[in-house]
Amino acid sequence: MSVVVRNVPRAALEVVDGLAAIGASTVHEAQGRIGYLGSTLRPIYAGARIAGSAVTVSAAPCDNWMIHVAVEQCQPGDILVVAPTSPSDAGYFGDLLATSLMARGVRGLIIDAGVRDVRDLTEMGFPVWSKAISSQGTVKETLGSVNIPVVVGTQLINPGDVIVADDDGVTVVRRKDAEKVLAAAQAREANEGGKRAQLAAGVLGLDLYKMRERLAAAGLKYIDYSEQ
Amino acid sequence: MSVVVRNVPRAALEVVDGLAAIGASTVHEAQGRIGYLGSTLRPIYAGARIAGSAVTVSAAPCDNWMIHVAVEQCQPGDILVVAPTSPSDAGYFGDLLATSLMARGVRGLIIDAGVRDVRDLTEMGFPVWSKAISSQGTVKETLGSVNIPVVVGTQLINPGDVIVADDDGVTVVRRKDAEKVLAAAQAREANEGGKRAQLAAGVLGLDLYKMRERLAAAGLKYIDYSEQ
Amino acid sequence: MSVVVRNVPRAALEVVDGLAAIGASTVHEAQGRIGYLGSTLRPIYAGARIAGSAVTVSAAPCDNWMIHVAVEQCQPGDILVVAPTSPSDAGYFGDLLATSLMARGVRGLIIDAGVRDVRDLTEMGFPVWSKAISSQGTVKETLGSVNIPVVVGTQLINPGDVIVADDDGVTVVRRKDAEKVLAAAQAREANEGGKRAQLAAGVLGLDLYKMRERLAAAGLKYIDYSEQ
Amino acid sequence: MSVVVRNVPRAALEVVDGLAAIGASTVHEAQGRIGYLGSTLRPIYAGARIAGSAVTVSAAPCDNWMIHVAVEQCQPGDILVVAPTSPSDAGYFGDLLATSLMARGVRGLIIDAGVRDVRDLTEMGFPVWSKAISSQGTVKETLGSVNIPVVVGTQLINPGDVIVADDDGVTVVRRKDAEKVLAAAQAREANEGGKRAQLAAGVLGLDLYKMRERLAAAGLKYIDYSEQ
Amino acid sequence: MSVVVRNVPRAALEVVDGLAAIGASTVHEAQGRIGYLGSTLRPIYAGARIAGSAVTVSAAPCDNWMIHVAVEQCQPGDILVVAPTSPSDAGYFGDLLATSLMARGVRGLIIDAGVRDVRDLTEMGFPVWSKAISSQGTVKETLGSVNIPVVVGTQLINPGDVIVADDDGVTVVRRKDAEKVLAAAQAREANEGGKRAQLAAGVLGLDLYKMRERLAAAGLKYIDYSEQ
Amino acid sequence: MSVVVRNVPRAALEVVDGLAAIGASTVHEAQGRIGYLGSTLRPIYAGARIAGSAVTVSAAPCDNWMIHVAVEQCQPGDILVVAPTSPSDAGYFGDLLATSLMARGVRGLIIDAGVRDVRDLTEMGFPVWSKAISSQGTVKETLGSVNIPVVVGTQLINPGDVIVADDDGVTVVRRKDAEKVLAAAQAREANEGGKRAQLAAGVLGLDLYKMRERLAAAGLKYIDYSEQ
Repeated sequence: MSVVVRNVPRAALEVVDGLAAIGASTVHEAQGRIGYLGSTLRPIYAGARIAGSAVTVSAAPCDNWMIHVAVEQCQPGDILVVAPTSPSDAGYFGDLLATSLMARGVRGLIIDAGVRDVRDLTEMGFPVWSKAISSQGTVKETLGSVNIPVVVGTQLINPGDVIVADDDGVTVVRRKDAEKVLAAAQAREANEGGKRAQLAAGVLGLDLYKMRERLAAAGLKYIDYSEQ
Repeated sequence: MSVVVRNVPRAALEVVDGLAAIGASTVHEAQGRIGYLGSTLRPIYAGARIAGSAVTVSAAPCDNWMIHVAVEQCQPGDILVVAPTSPSDAGYFGDLLATSLMARGVRGLIIDAGVRDVRDLTEMGFPVWSKAISSQGTVKETLGSVNIPVVVGTQLINPGDVIVADDDGVTVVRRKDAEKVLAAAQAREANEGGKRAQLAAGVLGLDLYKMRERLAAAGLKYIDYSEQ
Repeated sequence: MSVVVRNVPRAALEVVDGLAAIGASTVHEAQGRIGYLGSTLRPIYAGARIAGSAVTVSAAPCDNWMIHVAVEQCQPGDILVVAPTSPSDAGYFGDLLATSLMARGVRGLIIDAGVRDVRDLTEMGFPVWSKAISSQGTVKETLGSVNIPVVVGTQLINPGDVIVADDDGVTVVRRKDAEKVLAAAQAREANEGGKRAQLAAGVLGLDLYKMRERLAAAGLKYIDYSEQ
Repeated sequence: MSVVVRNVPRAALEVVDGLAAIGASTVHEAQGRIGYLGSTLRPIYAGARIAGSAVTVSAAPCDNWMIHVAVEQCQPGDILVVAPTSPSDAGYFGDLLATSLMARGVRGLIIDAGVRDVRDLTEMGFPVWSKAISSQGTVKETLGSVNIPVVVGTQLINPGDVIVADDDGVTVVRRKDAEKVLAAAQAREANEGGKRAQLAAGVLGLDLYKMRERLAAAGLKYIDYSEQ
Repeated sequence: MSVVVRNVPRAALEVVDGLAAIGASTVHEAQGRIGYLGSTLRPIYAGARIAGSAVTVSAAPCDNWMIHVAVEQCQPGDILVVAPTSPSDAGYFGDLLATSLMARGVRGLIIDAGVRDVRDLTEMGFPVWSKAISSQGTVKETLGSVNIPVVVGTQLINPGDVIVADDDGVTVVRRKDAEKVLAAAQAREANEGGKRAQLAAGVLGLDLYKMRERLAAAGLKYIDYSEQ
Repeated sequence: MSVVVRNVPRAALEVVDGLAAIGASTVHEAQGRIGYLGSTLRPIYAGARIAGSAVTVSAAPCDNWMIHVAVEQCQPGDILVVAPTSPSDAGYFGDLLATSLMARGVRGLIIDAGVRDVRDLTEMGFPVWSKAISSQGTVKETLGSVNIPVVVGTQLINPGDVIVADDDGVTVVRRKDAEKVLAAAQAREANEGGKRAQLAAGVLGLDLYKMRERLAAAGLKYIDYSEQ
């Protein structure tokens, strides 16, 4: 059955924005090293760092009809998340759809397929993380669904989950965990600041993290090159 | 048999330049969603947008001898198109060959293999679309052919066909169709301008493209999140 | 057995710096078209060109413990080279480890796996050549070794070997060959300068390299398009 | 948090066995072309056709500790489903684990990673669908979870979902839908029998499926080769 | 434009059958090492060796409507050749279509996409060379064409070209060259018989092919392990 | 420099044969989980299990000249190991070369490229582990070397190293370690026999390997499905 689910609950925008400030890698660590979509999803240009609430699209292969349907379900602070039902690298999305999404305050696109008009999207400042860049066009023939759970890369994404994306890739945070993960991520960042200063001053991680004893216990040996 | 075909007919330069102004994705759409070489051919730097007449090279694997032969067949407005006869990601092409091609007015290179000296090529402003970037050198031992039909990515390219390349990738247009495709592409672009303004103003594609009725007829249902 | 080898001999820094000035592709050619690690290792940002002495790490999959151990073995002019013992694209390395390496004068990282915090690394000017970019975190549970021979991409790298890396990728030079390869590479560059000027002036490679006779002997035929 | 969930509800065995008799492709069609895990999961030997209830494992990369934990949670009619938390092609599973699973009546293994001892597994008649075959060993250092939802290939699998696997690959059916999908699949199969006989007798699908009118309406033209 | 081309000329069946007896690799060599479709097209079962005249299909992605249309254009001795217009690994073809093709004397299928029902196809003895095996279903929504030139793997295939396929993969022979290639291939095979007997008797290829002098001239050196 | 190294020392044949009887996976484990070439090297047919001493070939891309040279350096009990200097999937090896190698008592081929005539090789019982199967032919134009160290997959192989290959893939054992590894592997196998019997009788690995306490210490929790 093809369905559009309306009025999906979102996380509070200040939580979403807090996660954006931290980025995909630290958020992934902070929630216990889970939720990363994998290295196949790459940004079309460097330097973007966003977070938003997922509006999800399950699309027929090489068919972008449901993306048009999904636009209406978007609100400021959202990120559109698109998964085809059969693997494809076609270009489902270009500058006209981006124009429409920007008019609604959408912050970016995550798509497990291809995207086109990347020069225009770059100039518009509309960031996309995709599996491919491709001119290959799509049709509008077969229904799909909006705001049902979808798998993108290696992760399940529910509508309303929080998406965090930057140059390292994309991490998903469950909506109900978002506040807790933000707190953990902020604590982690604060903690890293002190470490960074010490490491920059030449303190070794071996000493800072007190690794020497555990390494020795595990059996690590040191030998001199000339003794080999 | 190894052969060099001379005096291949080209499309008129103003048609070629018209296609360059439009770009790979819209040209691909305008000719009925055909001719895109696929997402494996990527530009070595962002921002180039060119079109030109194909001078084709069928090269032995890891052998760039015939590229040297092809240079002589190039004229201003051409694009060199290279296909190895066995899959390879070696670096067939570098800054010296680019220097030679630029001296003849060639606009860029499309190669279904690797390229090297990409920093120099970027500085020179000589754009390349390739399957790989690689230092791996090639030899000059085995003949191939110049200006015979070749397959690059997923498409056949004939000598004299028009190549359109930008950040989205590469599209080929048959020489005899170039004028007609240009007209269709220009019409398409003109049409898109009006749509873009409306979408930017917040009009939904659902309304602009009058999709609602057809979606309903196809069976799309809307439900509320709380009703699930 | 897990081992850390200390006091690995390095090539003279002026030789290393000489190789950096030339780059991965020409060095690869100058030593007889060997030593290139393959097109799978890509820089995280464009424009870096470095050389250094290899400090090697053999790491358990998805475990970066030994990278922490390796930092202590690094000295100014080194490049860290990391190979996991089982294929992985996880992000073994981020900005804190880079801070630590920069404090020791290390010039960059080569890793046959993933890297993260690429925006920070780019801002810090710490170059990395990797197989992937990934937020996916690693653990510190299983020993590995430092300064033993490792395979990265398609090449064996011994501790103390010279690594040359730029936008074209990464080439390894055996430590004992470094001086000889530098001389050959410099001679090659000097030779290329003259050729470049002639090619820019429109002289054909066919004539410059005196290829016409050998091509004819090999059987190359020229025909006119209209004769086909 | 690492957790083992006990006493997961299963579908009735007669429903599971009914789905096994039909196979992955028809079951996928019968539930509306959803649930196929993708072409990356391949059987280690041809000819097996099984169905079973999923006992799921989320395992650390290159670590098979949790597979040992999962064995205890298996009962006759189950299929073990393993997903690493970071991509890996290591060999997590071999003949000893298969011996243990067969002793508990488990029907096979689905693993989004590698498997080893494939000759022994083939002789034992223990079928496996995997992403790779690999000798590369794993460790037992890091916890994971048993019977939580996991993503394998392109699909989410919940503990207790029904897995159908044969030479075409693997399809998942939600536990609550299993009975309904079985009925739809059996109806589909019954219907295909009659069609098969007619097609074998030379009736064209164009006529059997009454496609000619719709094709003509869509604009399909017939021309003779000599008229081109 | 979507078109079905009727009455495509074929090569004589005795020529086609002669090529089948020789196989894909020797035919590829005999026509000058051209025409091999590449290593991505693999047989679904081992041991089949066929040749036939190509009936080609250009299909929309994940849409098998035109395969149904193509059946009517097939005659005994043909091989169906299918290329999607956008990369896809979906399962376009199964046992019902195979039943229909066998009723018309078609010898096999070459498809640059996926196939399903492979157990049934194996039992029926209907051989397929494909890029993937997949349960993923397709639709019947968008027109394509029958008997136009298509690219499959790395080669262009025209309707009526001769296809030769076995465990090594697939080679295409232009229809007008088929007779000449058969003669060359048969000569090559006859020549190989004598060589095989000598090699089996222990004569070295170095001597049989008189390579020693040319190797020495090229500079090959022999040294003893103990001299290194 | 191109060189053929003669009279490479081999391991004792009874050690080699002992390793063959054990197989690639257990040998890999017995030497500390090292030496596996990776999952990209696959057998052309199932069921072969061999070991032998490596005669190595470094070949120019798409050039099999040095394989002909290497045959003369082979003796009974050897395995030929071929690595191209640039990635290639061409078919460097077929039934004539296999005939020649069998006449010299060579047991099989490991090649980081393609192989052809696989039906003939299967009938002859000459096993091959390769990266690809391909008809694509090669030339005899460029020198390489025989019996120098080469990288195949992820491992360095020295001439005279012992190669162990079966359905799981290929493992390399350093010549000087072969005897010690054999002893360790045989001890491992003996130990596994007892475990297999207990596991078959229903004893859980959790108990057999005494894992429960360590799992609890690491923090593993058990909960009931109904408590979630």
